[in-house]
Amino acid sequence: MAQQLNAIGIWVKRRIAVGDDKKEIQQALDEALSDADIVLITGGLGPTADDITKPLLCEYFGGKMITDEKVLQHVTHIFQHILKRPLLERNLKQAEVPDNCRVLMNQKGTAPGMWFEKKGENGTNKIIVSLPGVPHEMKGIVTEKVLPLLQTKQKTSTIIHRTLLTAGAGESFIAERLQNWEADLPETIKLAYLPNYGMVRLRLTGRDRIDSDIERLTEKKFEELQDLVSDLLVIAADAMPEKALGDLLLAKNKTIATAESCTGGYIAHLFTSMAGASGFYKGSVIAYDNSIKTGLLNVSKNLLETKGAVSEETVTAMLNGLLEQTGADYGIAVSGIMGPRGGSEEKPVGTVWVAAGSAQQHVTKSFHFRFDRQRNIQLTAVQAVLLLLQFIRSEP
Amino acid sequence: MAQQLNAIGIWVKRRIAVGDDKKEIQQALDEALSDADIVLITGGLGPTADDITKPLLCEYFGGKMITDEKVLQHVTHIFQHILKRPLLERNLKQAEVPDNCRVLMNQKGTAPGMWFEKKGENGTNKIIVSLPGVPHEMKGIVTEKVLPLLQTKQKTSTIIHRTLLTAGAGESFIAERLQNWEADLPETIKLAYLPNYGMVRLRLTGRDRIDSDIERLTEKKFEELQDLVSDLLVIAADAMPEKALGDLLLAKNKTIATAESCTGGYIAHLFTSMAGASGFYKGSVIAYDNSIKTGLLNVSKNLLETKGAVSEETVTAMLNGLLEQTGADYGIAVSGIMGPRGGSEEKPVGTVWVAAGSAQQHVTKSFHFRFDRQRNIQLTAVQAVLLLLQFIRSEP
Repeated sequence: MAQQLNAIGIWVKRRIAVGDDKKEIQQALDEALSDADIVLITGGLGPTADDITKPLLCEYFGGKMITDEKVLQHVTHIFQHILKRPLLERNLKQAEVPDNCRVLMNQKGTAPGMWFEKKGENGTNKIIVSLPGVPHEMKGIVTEKVLPLLQTKQKTSTIIHRTLLTAGAGESFIAERLQNWEADLPETIKLAYLPNYGMVRLRLTGRDRIDSDIERLTEKKFEELQDLVSDLLVIAADAMPEKALGDLLLAKNKTIATAESCTGGYIAHLFTSMAGASGFYKGSVIAYDNSIKTGLLNVSKNLLETKGAVSEETVTAMLNGLLEQTGADYGIAVSGIMGPRGGSEEKPVGTVWVAAGSAQQHVTKSFHFRFDRQRNIQLTAVQAVLLLLQFIRSEP
Repeated sequence: MAQQLNAIGIWVKRRIAVGDDKKEIQQALDEALSDADIVLITGGLGPTADDITKPLLCEYFGGKMITDEKVLQHVTHIFQHILKRPLLERNLKQAEVPDNCRVLMNQKGTAPGMWFEKKGENGTNKIIVSLPGVPHEMKGIVTEKVLPLLQTKQKTSTIIHRTLLTAGAGESFIAERLQNWEADLPETIKLAYLPNYGMVRLRLTGRDRIDSDIERLTEKKFEELQDLVSDLLVIAADAMPEKALGDLLLAKNKTIATAESCTGGYIAHLFTSMAGASGFYKGSVIAYDNSIKTGLLNVSKNLLETKGAVSEETVTAMLNGLLEQTGADYGIAVSGIMGPRGGSEEKPVGTVWVAAGSAQQHVTKSFHFRFDRQRNIQLTAVQAVLLLLQFIRSEP
């Protein structure tokens, strides 16, 4: 929501979450309306007893409930033709709306959105929009109805975000390097340091009047920023390393496969989450159990016994077996101990080996993460992708 | 945070997110302190220019900045011995704290937590705790310092959550069935309907005085609830179907593997995210490209050409190939079109085939999801796991 609102020049001051409690919701509305022009609300519009938002808004804005015929037809259609389930009394109630709101049809569900307007203390119109909490229903109504309606209002400011991702240095180090440049940024442009996964995202936000040259100015500063961190740059977009690697593989017309033990499919998932992954991603062998490492990746039993599953030798053998079995141009192989159990004195929880490269050449790297299982899996995946990205970029 | 606070009897009224803006933060603090006894704050404690929370709190509570020797030693140690990076002036600043706060040491990072107390209008003590935004650092300080300190304060209420997961009916249908029972719930117990992934979670929240029998009462109502939805019950816990399936496989001492095309490793990831997965999960073949389906799962090229990759015959062949290759007792095979591209008139985006079962017997099922790529992947995975769970539960 915030991203879409920013894109049409609307600044998001605050995000509040409260429970399904009448007093809490009313108080949050009072506070929000005291200093915001627009308040978007999600959730509480369903057919069950804990859904109290609709009657609450009706009362709050002094209306009374009426049945909306268009919504009634829509709800009836959904139950009869799509869900093919009996239409219950409580489902028909979904078609009731306060008589003082503008109904926003919900093409993807039964609960309609509701648009209220109210005179503020200073005479300006306040806009309050109530939306269903189901994410794809909310997104549908926001995209099709709310944003176009908000765009008809006078646009007063332009908001631009430009984000890039760096790896290889901490935020203090980067801040030190950027200190003078950052101090010289115009008042209208802010720099945010967003560290995560052992990397640092840098986000420039430009915000100025609609008739300013903030767009051009932010672009110029973003180019300067890219130059200043060029040695650390993963991708000049608000994206993760797998996007950079995917783009690179597509550009080179090469393919990739993964052999995953400890990450258990998470690296494959990162690639296949991206639309168009079939252009570079072939597949993976998730060799969680050692029998899969030997059976499908041709890792020798002897190697597993002498060096252990978490070793440079094993990930190298996994990588070679993977590239042979799948015919992919590049591969990533990982093995490690993600916790909470399975660690030893020699190889504590968080120990990881990664191999990345091609059948001709590859690199290996070990890591020692100190986090919980979920975090260790994510960090291993991200660092493994980075390793292959850097390997390919450094190829002659 | 909310879960941990509830567990020690502290109710969470509200969650607010604001930007790194002085006025916004101050206003949010004012509002929070006007009606809460405890305010926990995260973020804004880092070493970069956008981190403004620490000086702001110092000013807000009328203190002055001093260097904390213990934090200074800790920060120095981290840079010299763990990060092995030069210690910058801005890192030393991490050891500065307002002189009117209690310092909460951060074992996992450089920015310490800060505990302030302030007399409220009605004479009660208000507690304000500032914590780093890095999740594992925040969690460490909350677990080791904040919760134990809060527990020394007088506990006044008991809060109990009991959650179960259902599949196979919509929330309206369940609400209809539970209507009388729900109406008879005592004032102190609330029922929430939480639909997601085509399933419905039901959460009972009991909240009463510390000396009440709310714990026993909530347990009793939770048992009644389980009986009322026994035919729809996936798991009587706040967990997803893979937990139910994992528990079942462990109990039966059986193993599982997955053959994934469209879900691209996500089902494998669901299993391997759980600690102890090695007790039942063997591995997977992520057969994204058809060459992997033929090469590693022995699906015949002729079948792929005549029936297509997204077909009942292909997922059946994938399942058989998988069980043969991995030796797992049970398997799941999925193939589908997740979008945004790749659909046809005959097989539109969202078309999915799933096969689940053993080498002796299996079931197949088709789905037609209507969401975006990410959501289609998640729904396919969840429904595929449910299919195998129901298959095994119905085995003689």
